[in-house]
Amino acid sequence: MSHTTPTYDELSGQWTRLHRLGHLQSIAGWDQAANMPPKGNEARAAALAEMAALLHRMRTDARLPGQLERAEQEPLSEPQRANLREMRREWRAANALPEALVQRQQLATSRCEHAWRTQRPANDWAGFLENFREVLRTGREEATLLSAESGLRKYDALMDRYEPGMTCAQLDRVFGEVRQWLPGLVRQVQGKQSREPVIEPVGPFPQAAQRALCEAVMRQLGFDFEAGRLDVSTHPFCGGVPEDVRMTTRFREDEFLSSLMGTIHETGHGRYEQNLPREWLGQPLAYARSMALHESQSLSFEMQLGSHPGFVGRIAPLVAQAFGDQAAFAPGNLHRLITRVKPGLIRVDADEVTYAAHIILRYEIERPLIEGEIEPEDVPALWDAKMMELLGVDTRGNFKDGPMQDVHWPEALFGYFPCYSLGAMYAAQWFATMRRAMPDLGARIAGGDLAAVFDWLREQIWSQGSRWTTDELARRASGETLNPAHWRAHLESRYLA
Amino acid sequence: MSHTTPTYDELSGQWTRLHRLGHLQSIAGWDQAANMPPKGNEARAAALAEMAALLHRMRTDARLPGQLERAEQEPLSEPQRANLREMRREWRAANALPEALVQRQQLATSRCEHAWRTQRPANDWAGFLENFREVLRTGREEATLLSAESGLRKYDALMDRYEPGMTCAQLDRVFGEVRQWLPGLVRQVQGKQSREPVIEPVGPFPQAAQRALCEAVMRQLGFDFEAGRLDVSTHPFCGGVPEDVRMTTRFREDEFLSSLMGTIHETGHGRYEQNLPREWLGQPLAYARSMALHESQSLSFEMQLGSHPGFVGRIAPLVAQAFGDQAAFAPGNLHRLITRVKPGLIRVDADEVTYAAHIILRYEIERPLIEGEIEPEDVPALWDAKMMELLGVDTRGNFKDGPMQDVHWPEALFGYFPCYSLGAMYAAQWFATMRRAMPDLGARIAGGDLAAVFDWLREQIWSQGSRWTTDELARRASGETLNPAHWRAHLESRYLA
Repeated sequence: MSHTTPTYDELSGQWTRLHRLGHLQSIAGWDQAANMPPKGNEARAAALAEMAALLHRMRTDARLPGQLERAEQEPLSEPQRANLREMRREWRAANALPEALVQRQQLATSRCEHAWRTQRPANDWAGFLENFREVLRTGREEATLLSAESGLRKYDALMDRYEPGMTCAQLDRVFGEVRQWLPGLVRQVQGKQSREPVIEPVGPFPQAAQRALCEAVMRQLGFDFEAGRLDVSTHPFCGGVPEDVRMTTRFREDEFLSSLMGTIHETGHGRYEQNLPREWLGQPLAYARSMALHESQSLSFEMQLGSHPGFVGRIAPLVAQAFGDQAAFAPGNLHRLITRVKPGLIRVDADEVTYAAHIILRYEIERPLIEGEIEPEDVPALWDAKMMELLGVDTRGNFKDGPMQDVHWPEALFGYFPCYSLGAMYAAQWFATMRRAMPDLGARIAGGDLAAVFDWLREQIWSQGSRWTTDELARRASGETLNPAHWRAHLESRYLA
Repeated sequence: MSHTTPTYDELSGQWTRLHRLGHLQSIAGWDQAANMPPKGNEARAAALAEMAALLHRMRTDARLPGQLERAEQEPLSEPQRANLREMRREWRAANALPEALVQRQQLATSRCEHAWRTQRPANDWAGFLENFREVLRTGREEATLLSAESGLRKYDALMDRYEPGMTCAQLDRVFGEVRQWLPGLVRQVQGKQSREPVIEPVGPFPQAAQRALCEAVMRQLGFDFEAGRLDVSTHPFCGGVPEDVRMTTRFREDEFLSSLMGTIHETGHGRYEQNLPREWLGQPLAYARSMALHESQSLSFEMQLGSHPGFVGRIAPLVAQAFGDQAAFAPGNLHRLITRVKPGLIRVDADEVTYAAHIILRYEIERPLIEGEIEPEDVPALWDAKMMELLGVDTRGNFKDGPMQDVHWPEALFGYFPCYSLGAMYAAQWFATMRRAMPDLGARIAGGDLAAVFDWLREQIWSQGSRWTTDELARRASGETLNPAHWRAHLESRYLA
């Protein structure tokens, strides 16, 4: 340890403590979703709120501003300086929020999320609203405070927690453009696909076989089972800690593709976490850069790789092995099943073309919701109108497959949704870059040689942690900042060629 | 809330915070044993050590002595006063230990326990010693500090954490007496049982069927699955929190009785936890009185109830349902299987007669180990000699079924073992009391009417939490303090009558 950077070293120790206590918070959060029996929830909510408040106190310690300033005067290496920049970012975000609000939000979201698990299947929008109003109230207060602190507009201030630097102004441009061509593309693809016959797989697909299939594919994709697990939860997620990644999925016995592709998706998150820079573990530098970049990894796995005809050809025999031979499992047919475009109600089941419509809709509802332009009561009507407008589907009265379908709102994750589509765009940008460097990429994937893909992702994304801003990382990896043209080109080449 | 007890209320709030953070510690500890993949261990150990240090800091806050004194002057109710007494007990124990030692011990035990999981099957005593030496070092330092603080002798000071008030002097008397008659009883019972034919069940016993059987029996025993779970771990335990009890077991497909009886055992712990006084939850008063009392509950379930011929008659049909009909599953034969006495190597597999020998042996080794009279290297020879002397079995070279068989030493739980046999004695004392009040108790059990048993336990033990000392609780429940004669009478009546 250098003795010329005493204050930086002190800060580094504090962040290590935060990382360790956050570890317990993550595991208990995963357990809440994957294991916890219902009567445990009140106590768990109280425990997680207590921990959130404690971590918040640590992140807002009165000595921090002085320490951060002194550390900035110390002779730091470039990554240390980047680490300090991220410490300051965390401190600024935390410092804008009083402990009472943090605790209230943790309680409100724990309650709302837990009740949502039974309210959603019961289509109980009125019951949901009772808890959700308080969740939104805390989200708005949070936005107001973060906005005052950062000078960003309210929604931008929330989004900054997930995707630093992203703004409504940029989103309005990007999503506005997508809105122009997406409905037309969906129609074109549907027209083309209506002339391609698809054989439906015949179930049931036993859970045990699905789990074994998912685990086999996770192994092909390099997931380290010595440092992570796959379990079941209502809403699949990738939680835990970089040292012990907890992926979840869910199984329906009448259908296997959603859990398979969902697992491939979460494996992308999992590998990012498992390959963050270990020598920095515990420090802000060692965390994933942003949520859009995180999604760029899950979507690199699910869409760029997992839905690639070459990769589908590799997993087709595993599918047949899991469920017995069927004509539906022939590589070409399986690929048609996986890439079938069909406007539907559920975001997480959406194909990669219509998915963006779900995100645009949520963005267009949660932005005015946070900025106080609309109230929770207004959501269903807006939802219905936008679903009809963007995808031509009718959601009236169907709350469980409408505004209650996602865990994000019960959990106050306002500003998160856009990251999904930004991630799809970045993923296309990464693979466009890889293809320029490796013209034989498609053949490699078809041959099961994924090492080059993983090496590229490890080198350019995973191992970089939070060392650079998203823009800088994108420039270093691909020569340019976010360029949605790659994503449009990917869709046109995969779905119209 | 009364405004005449401001300091007491403040303390109460602090203990609620301890309870909440301890919740995360418990769940993460359970997860470490039941779920965690191997590469997660270093990070988990560091996280748990951080939390242990944090809780320790809270329990040794410099303001506490003054607060405890001021609160003692406030007009408290009798249970509040008992709660305050327990706060002081916790504070005294914590205050005797410096944070650095607490953290070192947490790290040492996490490492040792984790390595033990693979070292034990490999019979790697030398490898185990490498970690265990540091564990013992921390245990001795702990004993020295606690002894200096309390004036108790070192081993008594450690035991006081689990069974407040118990001493080597009393144990030497109680165990010394047992040593007199136990070997003779074992021989007599073996002689009697050698003339009773027993039909062996024929395996395999599939894990899924065993799990279903265990869960069915847990339901019969009143375990609340809405507030707890059953999972698998190397060493079965009952963890989690009162609001969410995490029981574990382990399954061997060639044998089903050890997981079944182990589960019945842990269910006793689980129901104690699930029925602690809810209105006091979070306060010391709401925690289980002591480990001997905890064991008195698990052994009430496993030995007094679970091995009662009437109860065995009730579960025999469930066993046949789980594994298919076999002559071995006839009630009488099943009871003979469950109550078969056979000196063996493994404590957790021991019958209720020879079990005490395992405890006496451990007590006679860990007491001098803690008091510095012997070293870890001396353990195998002592173990071998005492196993031969007490049970006539040969353990030479077999470390995995010898001194490495328990999780207690890797986890530094020195002073815990005696609680098992004290628990067996208390359990017999409770049932002797119940039989005096309900002469038809045996018939009730045989009829599946366990409500009276559970009501008695709830009223006399569970709902009392830590309101009374163990002696006082025993007097209130049974009219006398610990009286091992009930246990001897129970054994003689069950095994020689």
